Amino acid sequence: MDLFNSMKVFADFIEIESNIGYNDITAEVEKIVAKSDIKNGIVAIHEMHTTAAIIINENNADLHEDTKDVLNEIVPVKEYRHNYEGNENAAAHIRSQLLGSNATLPIINGKLALGTWQSIFFMELFEKRRRRIAVVAMGE
Amino acid sequence: MDLFNSMKVFADFIEIESNIGYNDITAEVEKIVAKSDIKNGIVAIHEMHTTAAIIINENNADLHEDTKDVLNEIVPVKEYRHNYEGNENAAAHIRSQLLGSNATLPIINGKLALGTWQSIFFMELFEKRRRRIAVVAMGE
Amino acid sequence: MDLFNSMKVFADFIEIESNIGYNDITAEVEKIVAKSDIKNGIVAIHEMHTTAAIIINENNADLHEDTKDVLNEIVPVKEYRHNYEGNENAAAHIRSQLLGSNATLPIINGKLALGTWQSIFFMELFEKRRRRIAVVAMGE
Repeated sequence: MDLFNSMKVFADFIEIESNIGYNDITAEVEKIVAKSDIKNGIVAIHEMHTTAAIIINENNADLHEDTKDVLNEIVPVKEYRHNYEGNENAAAHIRSQLLGSNATLPIINGKLALGTWQSIFFMELFEKRRRRIAVVAMGE
Repeated sequence: MDLFNSMKVFADFIEIESNIGYNDITAEVEKIVAKSDIKNGIVAIHEMHTTAAIIINENNADLHEDTKDVLNEIVPVKEYRHNYEGNENAAAHIRSQLLGSNATLPIINGKLALGTWQSIFFMELFEKRRRRIAVVAMGE
Repeated sequence: MDLFNSMKVFADFIEIESNIGYNDITAEVEKIVAKSDIKNGIVAIHEMHTTAAIIINENNADLHEDTKDVLNEIVPVKEYRHNYEGNENAAAHIRSQLLGSNATLPIINGKLALGTWQSIFFMELFEKRRRRIAVVAMGE
């Protein structure tokens, strides 16, 4: 048993000016994990908006275009009830719910447990905006 | 280093009689975070059913109707193999997998890191039922 | 206050030879939770690939076939830009983003807070492969 318990919590926000679509935030998350000095634990990532999402997948421009096409097909921009910011906005809200606002990743042996092809993205589903992502790393 | 380490865990269940669609559980989750007295950490929220989901988005009735319409289109109620509780039940299972059963949110400076327009919902995808959501807050 | 603080972290990897579709990893995750000896806390599960997902739902073969059919309809295998491993691969990437790579579940009273009908699946969206899932249990 470790009397001088080394469990710690490190909380921070990532602030970005988003581009529409995929915004790679892997380096920012890794910076927070490095600052936390946590060797084993987790990092919780949550974007604080309703027309955006957190995505873990490959950083590949073709794939990102393909994914946007599929989202346009399954959640088309059409006449919605919730349209006081336009029908693009309603579609963004619905896509956000399908994709999810948050992800929690393991930290193992001092490294984010990301696979070779995995990056972390803030996905802007509406329009260029100032956006905020809350991040908490916790462990020992 | 803090000899009297203040890391703590607070576990609880939220029990609800669901309404079909969106059930706002933000206040219940915030009550658990307040009781835990955690200033920085995370709260993990997991609904314990297979025809429901946890959603983070805006509390707006029009948007909720729009979202239900889209779910009806992409996962229609039609003839499914898994239909011993009816085809509505199978559709609910599939929608649940697309939406997800769980979310983990940061707690920062004593507050759930929710954006201005974000609420936490238990989403009932099948029928009015007694439902259970497991919640763990952890941090310091 | 507990001077001999009992917070702990237990990190491990699950390695599998995947089958296409649903691979039940509930027993492996429960084994890690049991080894960790954590009574209250969380377990974070993250698959380290870009053509797979973590799913929480029922272990039922009919339901799994129904779900695969729906995925084939909403993200069909067709001509994609990102096709150097074939169009099945691109479809798998897009399905992965809709389903999600990770889940975090509460541990309460020494047990994973899974509902009666819930199992944890590694979902193979591409082809039989050696796959890795990072798992961190944390709590007291």
